[in-house]
Amino acid sequence: MSLLAVGTVAFDAIETPFGKTDRIVGGAATYVCLAASYFTKKANLVAVVGDDFPEEEIKDLNNHGINTDGLQIKKGEKSFFWSGRYHNDMNSRDTLVTDLNVLADFDPIVPEGYQDCQFLMLGNLTPKIQQTVINRLKNRPKLIVMDTMNFWMDIAMDDLKETLKLVDVLTINDAEARQLSGEYSLVKAARKIQQMGPKYLVIKKGEHGALLFGEGQIFSAPALPLEDVFDPTGAGDTFAGGFIGYLAGQNEVNFEKMKKAVIYGSALASFCVEKFGTERIKNLSQEEINGRVAEFSKLVQF
Amino acid sequence: MSLLAVGTVAFDAIETPFGKTDRIVGGAATYVCLAASYFTKKANLVAVVGDDFPEEEIKDLNNHGINTDGLQIKKGEKSFFWSGRYHNDMNSRDTLVTDLNVLADFDPIVPEGYQDCQFLMLGNLTPKIQQTVINRLKNRPKLIVMDTMNFWMDIAMDDLKETLKLVDVLTINDAEARQLSGEYSLVKAARKIQQMGPKYLVIKKGEHGALLFGEGQIFSAPALPLEDVFDPTGAGDTFAGGFIGYLAGQNEVNFEKMKKAVIYGSALASFCVEKFGTERIKNLSQEEINGRVAEFSKLVQF
Repeated sequence: MSLLAVGTVAFDAIETPFGKTDRIVGGAATYVCLAASYFTKKANLVAVVGDDFPEEEIKDLNNHGINTDGLQIKKGEKSFFWSGRYHNDMNSRDTLVTDLNVLADFDPIVPEGYQDCQFLMLGNLTPKIQQTVINRLKNRPKLIVMDTMNFWMDIAMDDLKETLKLVDVLTINDAEARQLSGEYSLVKAARKIQQMGPKYLVIKKGEHGALLFGEGQIFSAPALPLEDVFDPTGAGDTFAGGFIGYLAGQNEVNFEKMKKAVIYGSALASFCVEKFGTERIKNLSQEEINGRVAEFSKLVQF
Repeated sequence: MSLLAVGTVAFDAIETPFGKTDRIVGGAATYVCLAASYFTKKANLVAVVGDDFPEEEIKDLNNHGINTDGLQIKKGEKSFFWSGRYHNDMNSRDTLVTDLNVLADFDPIVPEGYQDCQFLMLGNLTPKIQQTVINRLKNRPKLIVMDTMNFWMDIAMDDLKETLKLVDVLTINDAEARQLSGEYSLVKAARKIQQMGPKYLVIKKGEHGALLFGEGQIFSAPALPLEDVFDPTGAGDTFAGGFIGYLAGQNEVNFEKMKKAVIYGSALASFCVEKFGTERIKNLSQEEINGRVAEFSKLVQF
């Protein structure tokens, strides 16, 4: 079934202990759509860029089967730009530059042709914009997945809580789950967050894997132990894209399917960190993905 | 097969956000032997206490089938005492008191009746003492498991490396694996540590589970998501006791058996943290243990 992804399409400049990049294409919606493209041929993008955004990069998305009718190109304006430097542990980073540019007054227009989308991925944006997208859909999608971050908990908690009431799945990391709920125990945190709206909660723990809560059950997904994490940028968005993309390719949504979706999302994320930016997830084969999923399966069998 | 465990038998005074205890019985060897007692009826203890150690506590160990012939009781001396306060996150703690007492000149005498032990658990002690125990065994045990901590890496790294050459399995946490190897990637850290001696490495990650490395394979064990961690004291030792105890109850030692041993160790540790000190692991039924292991199995199935 078809997927609508809203989020940033942007330029990133990244420094890691392994090297640095010039401006490369990034943004949550870019990672989400690329990851989802391996599972559904109907990924639709809603985002905004400036006219500095290269046409060939848009064509590249289209070549992955991603519909960019909803990608607004603002004349005379610049694309969102983020620059960051990762520390040696790869778990913490300093933001060097955040130029909102076109993102400052982003109005997420949903093209008429997107109205039949059954799966909605709300990439990390202001909770208000995420809510606007939901409101602009004439029919409620079958599944709404929302990503957010601590920044919105700090400055827009009320808006965030309003939006949370409208979604089915929330994906956040463990520190964010604790901040949002005020509970240290993740079991208690999950229960509180599920009472805020989302029936399902995915807690992303980076190198420690992910936890899925829902239907009174818990699933623990491992992370693949990696020789090196080359660049973690976009790993969370790639996870989300693999997760919702896998579900969009299925006939039903339930806890069993979601467990597999968490593994497919984790597998895609494990590829993402192997190279800078989107380089690795632009060029995956179905065999590579299936092989990686088999590794996850082997890793936990006893 | 029979097990020899060397380590501390001690008094602890513990403060957590949930409450505090007076002096209660603790110590690595206590936890190891109690946990192992659910899998092998031949657990033999080598440790030292002062004459302040209550006789009924020794009888309690004997009632769990633990042989205390190797427990030295020093007249006119005091038992090792540790006191600590856990922070709200339960992952960090302040040590309030460390009174070595009898531990200061502990000479680990191995009774003649222990010489046939096939499984040796070296609880956290100075690497020199751990090495002495190995040297005092006439026949090399079938499996030697060693626990240690960052403290010995800071002050006795050379001794530690000498002892590491003699053991089969090392159990440490992720920060310690990084410190010991100088590698941030746990895959690289494991490879380096395996080159130091141990064919197998267990990296304990607390609330994130554990990783087992060996025979060119990796196994990822989840941690059971808990409502509350009441008192984490002894969880690592309980893990080690369940791990080696399970193996001592098997006919062979290989990666497949070790995976199960990691799960049984994790299950025992998940009980340990439910109450203060040894309270919970003193009173477990086989049904409870099997039920917990089944929960671990369900947690990762997809």
